[in-house]
This record gives sequence, structure tokens and C-alpha cells, in this order.
Amino acid sequence: MFSLDLSGLTPQQFLDTYWQKKPTVIRQGFKDFIDPITADELAGLACDEQVESRLVYKKAGAWQAEFGPFESYGHLGEREWTLVVQAVDHWLPQVAALAEPFQFIPNWRKDDLMMSFATPGGGVGPHIDLYDVFIIQGSGKRHWRVGDRGAHNEFAAHEALLHVDDFEPIIEVELLPGDILYIPPGFPHDGSAVEPSLSYSVGFRTNSGYELTEGLADFLAEHALAKELMCDPDREATERPGAISQQDVALIKQHLMKVVADDELFSRFIGEFVSQAKHDLDIAVMDDEGYSKQEVIALLQQGKPLHRLGGLRCFYFEATLDQGVFYVDGEEKRLPSEMKAVIQLLCDQRSISAEQLLPWIDHNPFLDFLIELLNAGYWYFEGA
Amino acid sequence: MFSLDLSGLTPQQFLDTYWQKKPTVIRQGFKDFIDPITADELAGLACDEQVESRLVYKKAGAWQAEFGPFESYGHLGEREWTLVVQAVDHWLPQVAALAEPFQFIPNWRKDDLMMSFATPGGGVGPHIDLYDVFIIQGSGKRHWRVGDRGAHNEFAAHEALLHVDDFEPIIEVELLPGDILYIPPGFPHDGSAVEPSLSYSVGFRTNSGYELTEGLADFLAEHALAKELMCDPDREATERPGAISQQDVALIKQHLMKVVADDELFSRFIGEFVSQAKHDLDIAVMDDEGYSKQEVIALLQQGKPLHRLGGLRCFYFEATLDQGVFYVDGEEKRLPSEMKAVIQLLCDQRSISAEQLLPWIDHNPFLDFLIELLNAGYWYFEGA
Ligand SMILES: O=C(O)CCC(=O)C(=O)O
Ligand SMILES: O=C(O)CCC(=O)C(=O)O
Ligand SMILES: [Co+2]
Ligand SMILES: [Co+2]
Repeated sequence: MFSLDLSGLTPQQFLDTYWQKKPTVIRQGFKDFIDPITADELAGLACDEQVESRLVYKKAGAWQAEFGPFESYGHLGEREWTLVVQAVDHWLPQVAALAEPFQFIPNWRKDDLMMSFATPGGGVGPHIDLYDVFIIQGSGKRHWRVGDRGAHNEFAAHEALLHVDDFEPIIEVELLPGDILYIPPGFPHDGSAVEPSLSYSVGFRTNSGYELTEGLADFLAEHALAKELMCDPDREATERPGAISQQDVALIKQHLMKVVADDELFSRFIGEFVSQAKHDLDIAVMDDEGYSKQEVIALLQQGKPLHRLGGLRCFYFEATLDQGVFYVDGEEKRLPSEMKAVIQLLCDQRSISAEQLLPWIDHNPFLDFLIELLNAGYWYFEGA
Repeated sequence: MFSLDLSGLTPQQFLDTYWQKKPTVIRQGFKDFIDPITADELAGLACDEQVESRLVYKKAGAWQAEFGPFESYGHLGEREWTLVVQAVDHWLPQVAALAEPFQFIPNWRKDDLMMSFATPGGGVGPHIDLYDVFIIQGSGKRHWRVGDRGAHNEFAAHEALLHVDDFEPIIEVELLPGDILYIPPGFPHDGSAVEPSLSYSVGFRTNSGYELTEGLADFLAEHALAKELMCDPDREATERPGAISQQDVALIKQHLMKVVADDELFSRFIGEFVSQAKHDLDIAVMDDEGYSKQEVIALLQQGKPLHRLGGLRCFYFEATLDQGVFYVDGEEKRLPSEMKAVIQLLCDQRSISAEQLLPWIDHNPFLDFLIELLNAGYWYFEGA
């Protein structure tokens, strides 16, 4: 496991000082950093059509972007291009491990882990993101400039590249392997490789009021909820039939608010909404009828650790954990309440050791549910 | 204009006693009632493909439903079929006039006016509606049974006919021309013609929390509003990365609530949402470049009344009327604030007399806006 040093700060100190507030360089955040993946492996991943990737380069001074899957990179030369691959954590557990040290920020806030390989002079160009990101430098060196928040002019340098006008840097730095650049939303930044360079962006997501409203509408539609119609038995006769009265606005607002004010409904919405993955998951197709109870017991007895599929999102609420409620990949699950501790293991840990699971080996509801998760491809035994 | 007698009650007394509470028969609500349309005209309307219509009848004891447009009715015989036509008020102003006496209930609550023609023994079968309705009996007689609210079993008597099990009537009545049956949501009812019978259903609409949420999401998407992302600069470090904490639920809820709590945004949403028509409007296609100022002035001087297109929905809020804000057919309009009185005329009255308009004949912004409305086909001069 990667061990993170936030320049000597505690996670809380880091959050208080920098999170969502200002960018910072964390020198040697990962000491003696060794890439969990090579540039060649990344390039190979971008040949898979399920993987979202982009090539960014300049042609005669003009920015270009192409979308993967790619077949070869030979024609690109040795300078001034970048390969960007989304959601590498969905495909490679050793890359997913890189996000674990950032779990002092809860997983529901986490987005996917994006990687880039850049040749000297390569980069995606100056831009602004709406999300927080920790950019971890792997092998090679990259020069970064970060400007201040403010009114920056954005423009399409290419139809797929939203760039920003040149900015005055408040940070200018050359990142070395294991260095980390943290950038909150709204700060323009521009990276340019000094040598062939790998970098890992641990990104975080958040939502707009619009996205939440749309998500809520989808949720209500899917479950056929909130179908009760507004009532107005206390209506007052009007002489202005074309007016929508203050009382009526209040009535309509109240009816809409009911949905949000219903704590049970609202937390179910949040649980299902934030546990939806934005990128494909690497779901293994079962080639037979799935696991039997005997097989699972044998694997547990052999001491195999259980891993969560990369990119799978699963969460619980402290308030309903006692009732065995949690959320996996956009769906609510309800387990017997005595399985509370298992739910916590599944949601809090990317990997669960055999020791942690052994106490459950005789618990039938646990075994049934574990088989359901294994057969869905959501969790898997190491080496099985 | 039709004159309504609510069995001697004032509109407020009617609302207090019956509205959304219990069904009632209003004998001779319209005295000396004369149909504004004949059965033949209705049958003709249902031949138009823009008009939504249905035939309901029984074949060998089994309920049948067919959707219009229809070409002929000759094969149906003289008994036990009904023709139902939606939104007749969108096509025939003389039918739209029938809804006017109910304007003590504001127009935003109004749905379309549905009509039916039934031959002896004909009816749509026992059913429950989610909406309030005033069923006005035209020529002929119809026998009605209305049951109490409660747990009634609904079933599909045909894929397009949701029926309800037989019920104990709390009202059993034979309606004569000019009689009105008011039925709130949830009361099962069943009508069966005694003689060839025309009836007019003045329906009201309301919305569910789901529909409001979906409408709000569509509104935000259309206008690219509420794009601001949720922030969490005060985040606390967690040791339970799989949990969504109480604070985080509150944060997300607050971010969603912001949209509803923004009074300006919310009332704009309501205005645009409730002014959307659910059925086609009979928009006249302009065969030339539209009205000139001179033509409009001439029509006003000739004393032509101005009519609102049937089914067009337009509303204002008392709070923003002073600012010239109102809503027509799903869109916000902003006029100079001195035009407040005109907005009220347009929204409160289905028809505006020449006398009411003459004071505005020299007001250029009014003339410009009137031309916009005329050219859009939303209002029209009588006989022009
Ligand atoms: O890896 C890169 O070239 C771009 C990284 C970046 O801008 C980010 O993660 O926000
Ligand atoms: O006109 C009919 O036959 C049915 C009317 C009705 O059920 C209604 O308006 O709710
Ligand atoms: Co960036
Ligand atoms: Co009905």
C-alpha cells in the first residue's frame, strides 16, 4: 500500500488549509515512488474499446484531440503529445491502490483515477477543472504552472479541448516522481512534460443543483415514487383567474419540498445516486453457474483476501447501517442487521483480509450475499 | 356567456363544501342549456388527426377502445358506444366558453375540456380519475352512479381502459340537459346514456411531486440554470471512507434545496411549467407576413373584440405583475411595467372588448406586443 505524507500535515490540517481553498505542492507525498504501471501498459490499455482515452497533440501549432481506442502510437514521434486515459482504477487494481491514501476524504466524493503519459513538451494545455484533483507525478518530470482563481477567459482550442487564456502563475514547479500537486476547482493549470512522464490524477466529483434535481427525478421515475398529487381542498374563490396566487405558489413549493424533506426517500436517493459509476466497470463474465457455497468456504479457509472491483461505488449511512442498509452500484441493498460489521468492511475497505472474514464463515446470510456479490463480479478473491 | 348557478351557493361556499371533498349534483347548473355544438360536429372533429379521440364500446360483452382519427361511425349501430374527444376547447371557442363560469377556480388549475357523445347504453365504464371534474349534461339523458372514496380494485378492462370493480353508489342520478355532476379525485363513477347524449367534462389538473421534480429538472436544463457545484471547504477527515455522513447528507440536501428556495427561479419555473399546454393548440398559420401596425389599429377602431386561442395557458404572479412579468405557453415574457393592466386583461379574460383595448391604441410597446401575439396565433380578432 502506498503511504502518503502530506508535507507533515494531518489530514485534518490539510483539509482545513487547502481543501477547496488553494493549490499546493506536496513534495515527496509518496516517498520512493515506483509506478504501478508502465507507459507501455497504459498505451495498451488505451487500445481497449471499453476504456475511454484521448490523444492530445499539436499540429502546425494547432491543438488536436483524438479519441481512443488507439491502434498504434508510432506515427506520433518522440515529442509533444500526451495520451490521457480515464478510470484506470477501474481496470488495474494496482493503480486503484494509489487512491487509497486519500480516503480521509470519503469515497462518495471520489471520481475516477485518470492517467496521462506525456512526451517532452507534451501536455493537454492550459485549462480549468470543476473538480478537486491530486496530480501524482510518476516517472519522469513535468513542469506545472497554476494560476489564481478569478475571471479567466475560456475558449475551445479544439472542439474537444476547453482551454483558458494565459495566466499569471501563483505556483510554478517541476514535479519529480512521488511529488503531488493538489488543485481545487477553478484554478487554471498547465502541465508540460520535461522528460517522458507518467502522471496519476486522483479526482473528486461533486454535483450541481441541476444534476441533483435531474438525478432525483430519474430516481422517482425508476421507483414510481412521489406519485401523490397536490391537493387544495382549502382553495379560495378568485376573481383573477389568470393569477397564480402566493398561496398557490406556496402550495406547489410545499408539494415539491415534501420529496426532499422525506428523510428516508432522500437518503435512498442520495445512496443510489452517488453510488452510480460514471465509467464502465470491468465486470468479469461468469463462465459457469457461479460460485457454490463450498467453493467460497474453501477460498476463505485458504486465506484469500477479498477485493472490491476497481471503480465500484458502495456506501452506507451511519443512520441506517444498523438496519443493514447500504448502496452498491446505484442500488439499495438490505441485509440482516447483524451483518452491519460486514457492510462496513465492504464499504470502508478496498480489500478485506481472510482474518476479517473468517468469523462469518458459518453465517449463511453472509455466504449467500457474498456469492451474490462474487457472481455479480462486484467483489473477487485474489488469485481465484 | 353561460351563466352558472351552483344550487344557490356562492363559489366560496361551493369550494368549502365540495371542492376536493365530495361529489355533488348541481341540478340546472346551466338553465335552459343549449348545446354549443352538435353530436355531428363532434363526430366530425374526431376525424381530424390533430384531435385526440377515442371510441369505447363492447363487443360480445368485452370492452373495446379505438383511437381516432375516425373515418366513419356507421358500422357502430345505434346503441352502446361512446365517442370521447379531448381538448374540444382548443378547437371550438363556443365550447371553451363553457369553462368560463368555473373561473372562480384559477385557470392554472384547469385542464382541457373533454366531450363525449354516447348512444343509449353507452359509456366508458366504471373508473376512477385523479382529477376534479364538472360533467355538464348536454342534450339527452345520462344515468350516473358515483361511489365513495376508498380502497377500490382497479383493473385493465382493455389495455386502454382502466376500470374499477363494482361499487356501492353514494350518488345515483339521471342527468338532464344543464345538470352538472361534480366529482373530486378518487371517487369511482360510471355513466350510461339513457338517450343519445352529449356531455362536457370541465377537468382540472394537478401534479405529483415526481412531475414537479421532473419539470424542474427540464426547466433547469433548458435554461442552463443551477449549474453551481456543491462545495465542502469545511470537510472533516473521516476514518470511515465508505460512509456518507450526516453532515454530507445535509450538505447535499441543502444544495438541492437552494434551487427550490430561490424564489425568483422557482416562480419562473412554476410560471413556465403550468403554462405548458398538454394538447395541441389550433395555431393558425399566417399566410402572409403577419399584421402591420396600421391593420391592428384599424381593427381596434372597428371595435373588434380580441380572443385568446382556446387552450392557450397564460398566467401572472401577483408579486411580479408590477414588473410586467407573465407566462404564455411555457415561456416567460417581460413587458414594460406600465403594461401591467394589459397583462391582467390578457390573462384574466378569454375575450377582451374593444373598449378595454382602445386606451392602448397609441401605446407602441402594446401594439408591438399585440402584433407578436397575433402573429404567433395566440390571440385573434373576432371575424378578422
Ligand atoms: O495529466 C495531465 O496532463 C493533465 C492532468 C490535469 O490537468 C488534471 O488532472 O486536472
Ligand atoms: O363522458 C364520459 O362518458 C365520461 C366522463 C368522465 O368520466 C369524466 O369526465 O371524468
Ligand atoms: Co486539470
Ligand atoms: Co371520469
